[in-house]
Amino acid sequence: MKPRIGFIGLGIMGAPMAGHLLAAGYPLTIANRSRGAAVAALVAGGAAWAESPASLAAQSDIIITILGFPADVEAVWRGGDGLIANAKPGTLLIDMTTSSPGLAQLLAREAAAHGLGALDAPVSGGEAGARNAGLSIMLGGDAADLARALSVFETLGKNIRHMGGPGAGQHTKMANQIAIASTLLGVAESIAYARAAGLQGGAVLEALGPGAAGSFQLAMLGPKMIAQDFAPGFMLKHFIKDLGIALAEAEGMGLALPGLAQARRLAEMAAATTGDDAGTQAIIAALAVP
Amino acid sequence: MKPRIGFIGLGIMGAPMAGHLLAAGYPLTIANRSRGAAVAALVAGGAAWAESPASLAAQSDIIITILGFPADVEAVWRGGDGLIANAKPGTLLIDMTTSSPGLAQLLAREAAAHGLGALDAPVSGGEAGARNAGLSIMLGGDAADLARALSVFETLGKNIRHMGGPGAGQHTKMANQIAIASTLLGVAESIAYARAAGLQGGAVLEALGPGAAGSFQLAMLGPKMIAQDFAPGFMLKHFIKDLGIALAEAEGMGLALPGLAQARRLAEMAAATTGDDAGTQAIIAALAVP
Repeated sequence: MKPRIGFIGLGIMGAPMAGHLLAAGYPLTIANRSRGAAVAALVAGGAAWAESPASLAAQSDIIITILGFPADVEAVWRGGDGLIANAKPGTLLIDMTTSSPGLAQLLAREAAAHGLGALDAPVSGGEAGARNAGLSIMLGGDAADLARALSVFETLGKNIRHMGGPGAGQHTKMANQIAIASTLLGVAESIAYARAAGLQGGAVLEALGPGAAGSFQLAMLGPKMIAQDFAPGFMLKHFIKDLGIALAEAEGMGLALPGLAQARRLAEMAAATTGDDAGTQAIIAALAVP
Repeated sequence: MKPRIGFIGLGIMGAPMAGHLLAAGYPLTIANRSRGAAVAALVAGGAAWAESPASLAAQSDIIITILGFPADVEAVWRGGDGLIANAKPGTLLIDMTTSSPGLAQLLAREAAAHGLGALDAPVSGGEAGARNAGLSIMLGGDAADLARALSVFETLGKNIRHMGGPGAGQHTKMANQIAIASTLLGVAESIAYARAAGLQGGAVLEALGPGAAGSFQLAMLGPKMIAQDFAPGFMLKHFIKDLGIALAEAEGMGLALPGLAQARRLAEMAAATTGDDAGTQAIIAALAVP
């Protein structure tokens, strides 16, 4: 018999993910801050609606959260009304939010103290990955807990990797965002330079793409930077949040990451110009091309 | 009949390139600062040796230079003993050094004033690209001059692109190095973070490589950073030179590139530790992992 799943956080990512679980036949209970169209569609598809995390917790074997910010995760997991206090012993709690590794470790300890399992399982692949069940999932926690939820993860993604104990999934996601941050800035600076030098942007991308300057960011976001198309694939505000977590975590480990700090500063400058709902490619707006 | 080619600069890049031209049947005259094994091999293969750029210029229809620094290019092209003063009218001069766009424009003007053609034609692809005739060649100058030398370029590379007038090849190469600089730094910071967080480096590369953090730099240099293998593919000293040109050029255009400045600073810091003959992956040595 399939485990009963509780799912909290039905945003751009969470809604299609919950839809995949429902379609795969998991008994599903959902909760969300607001009750909009995504909730209605899932309820119409057979999901049960819970008024609170506490009531959802009482009727679930595995609970998944995918929320906006670490503070949201804390609010849903901790405290008298939270998942940890209200889940039945033996429940497995999984946070798929991109959040703080330190918080993931804390939550895993508190969950264990209540006889609960916990995994940190942030994803990459964005909205498209969530929609086509093609997410990469970076896992931290016990192998036995992962094994218990493996078929759930396989319903949501493809590249499923166990990176180590509690927090290791979040740490891997941070390593991912750190690499993206400076790569994105390098692409933006390259395109800004090319524009200032009077080169044709598309020709530059063709010249650079196949060589040592090539990257996913160049290929996917370079053309949008050239076209000044700032429609979001991944929003600046979430990117800035992620980079802030990575910087704080690095600082806590005594590691200075000057490229990351620079990229975050420029992302913030760009957000002040374009608004922070713009896509990450809008970082080029922080570079004043003469 | 094939044009007579003069070739100056028989270093890691120039020597195999000259070898390809000789093998393709071009009458070849060579000159070089030093007369070592590479020169001996080319002379044994049929190349003529010239004692100076001036004497080489007198017996060549197309002259290629690929040297270390812009000052070397100036020394060989300009002045009473230089190529411009001593080439026959109608000679085509091609600089394949990664050099300053401003210098390329100046040399093109001076060449034109002497009835000579000039192209800037920096390459990417490194030593491997030079050896297997797989270089990317970024061209600036007149289309007619490019057409005249096209079969020469096709003997040396594959991805041959005319980017615009004089200097456009160098500008494109600068855009290439700018994208690489921050991408490289992002990869180094990601790996340094992963190491500090206690993650297994190889597993992190596998998790990140196929996704939005993926890049040529991550795939090719990430494993070397993890292994602390600093053997050079492309040396820090040449990279630092390139980034200095790009920064100066950007400043001249009124364009601030903070990511590039940061990457160059860290490359210099790393070079102080590892020596500047280390490969660019040694930039990770500038990040003090606790």
